[in-house]
Amino acid sequence: MFDARLEELGVHLPGPFPPHDPLDAVVRHHRTARTSGCLPRDARGTLLATGLLGRDLTTEQGAACAELCALNAVSLLRAELGRLDLIERLLTLSVFIACTSDFVEQPAVADGASRELVRLFGDAGRHSRSAIGVAALPRGGPVEVELTVALQKEP
Amino acid sequence: MFDARLEELGVHLPGPFPPHDPLDAVVRHHRTARTSGCLPRDARGTLLATGLLGRDLTTEQGAACAELCALNAVSLLRAELGRLDLIERLLTLSVFIACTSDFVEQPAVADGASRELVRLFGDAGRHSRSAIGVAALPRGGPVEVELTVALQKEP
Amino acid sequence: MFDARLEELGVHLPGPFPPHDPLDAVVRHHRTARTSGCLPRDARGTLLATGLLGRDLTTEQGAACAELCALNAVSLLRAELGRLDLIERLLTLSVFIACTSDFVEQPAVADGASRELVRLFGDAGRHSRSAIGVAALPRGGPVEVELTVALQKEP
Repeated sequence: MFDARLEELGVHLPGPFPPHDPLDAVVRHHRTARTSGCLPRDARGTLLATGLLGRDLTTEQGAACAELCALNAVSLLRAELGRLDLIERLLTLSVFIACTSDFVEQPAVADGASRELVRLFGDAGRHSRSAIGVAALPRGGPVEVELTVALQKEP
Repeated sequence: MFDARLEELGVHLPGPFPPHDPLDAVVRHHRTARTSGCLPRDARGTLLATGLLGRDLTTEQGAACAELCALNAVSLLRAELGRLDLIERLLTLSVFIACTSDFVEQPAVADGASRELVRLFGDAGRHSRSAIGVAALPRGGPVEVELTVALQKEP
Repeated sequence: MFDARLEELGVHLPGPFPPHDPLDAVVRHHRTARTSGCLPRDARGTLLATGLLGRDLTTEQGAACAELCALNAVSLLRAELGRLDLIERLLTLSVFIACTSDFVEQPAVADGASRELVRLFGDAGRHSRSAIGVAALPRGGPVEVELTVALQKEP
C-alpha cells in the first residue's frame, strides 16, 4: 500500500545513505523502528545546502531541506524493512535545525518534512514532533531529522 | 487518583494547545504516550516569555517557563487520554533551553518542570531527563519540553 | 558475558553519578532502559573538560569526552540493573555536542562514544545515533549523551 502509493506519486527516494560503521541506519525493537539522524542528501549523496537558517538560508530553503531529510529517513526504512508496507504508522519526528539565535521559524522549516510524510503515508503519516533550533549539524547541514515508526504485527 | 490530586492541589491546566495540522499532539503506541514539543503557554495561549537564558531571562524566569511547559504537556495528555488516571508513571522528559553559549544553569531551569511533575504525580512523576541548551526555539520560546509516559494496562 | 568482557578488557567504569532528586538515573519500561543525560565525569566526578568544540577543544578532545560520557551511561545502567548481562543490545545513542556555529565535526566527536560502546558490547553495541551541535550543556560540559538499551527477556 505505501510502496504502491509512492510509485503512483512518482516519488524517487534518494539513497539509502546509511551512516558509517559501527552505526546502524535503523534499529528495530519490538514493533518500532528508529532511524539514525538523516541529513538532506540528494540522489548523489550531496547535501542540498549547508549553513544556518536566519543567516544563510531562507525558511523556504530550510523547508526543502527538511523534506529531503524526511525522504532520506524513508529511504533508510525501506532499505532496512525491504518494503514500506511493513510500517503501521509513523510515531515521532525529531527535527533539528541549525540556526541563528534570533530565528523563530523552526515550525515552518520542520513542516517541510511533516507535510511530505503525510503526503506519502496519508493519515498513517501523522506524528508527534519537536522542532529544535541548534548551533550546528554534521557536515554543515542545515537540518537533521530522526524518525520513529510503528511496525505491523508479524503476519 | 491523579485527576483527583490535581483538583485537590487546585492546579488549573493551561490549554490544551495542540500543534497545527498534520501533527499529533500526543502519539500512543503500546503502553506509552509521547507529546509533541510544548512551549510555555499560559491559559490564553500566550508565551510566558521569549528570549534566551543567559541574556534576556534569569534562571528563575527560565524555571517558571519550564514549569509551564510541563503543565502544557500534561494538558495535552489529559486531552488525549480523557483522564490522567490512565497514566501509570512518567518515563522521560526532554528539556530544550534556548540560551547563550556561556549559560550553564540548564539543570536549574529544567528543575522547574521536573519538580512540578513530581508535585502533581508523586513518585510516579519521577523520570529520566536530559537538559540541553539550544540556539533558538519556535516563536522565540525560551524552553520546550517533550514528555513520554507509561500507560496503565487496559482493564 | 558483558560483565566478564569489561573485566577482561580492564575497563574501570567511572561513577555511577546519578542525577539529583527527583530525577531517575535510568528508567525501565517493558524491555528497554534509558539513561538520563550523562556528562564526561571522571572517577572523582569531575568533568574531563568544559567549553565549546570549535573554540576551546579539539575534535580529539571532544571524542575523549564523548567516550567518557558513554562510560558514565554504562555505569548508570550497571548500577540500575545490577549487571550488564541483563542487556540484550544497545538501541539508540543521542549525542549533544556544545559547539560554535561553524563546527562540523560532530560525527567524529560522537564516534568517541560509539566506538567505545562497540568495543565493550561487540555487535550488541551497535546503535542508531544522532549527533547534534548545541549552544551549551549543563555545567559547561562539552558533550552529553543519552543511551537507550534493550533488556533480555526475564528468564
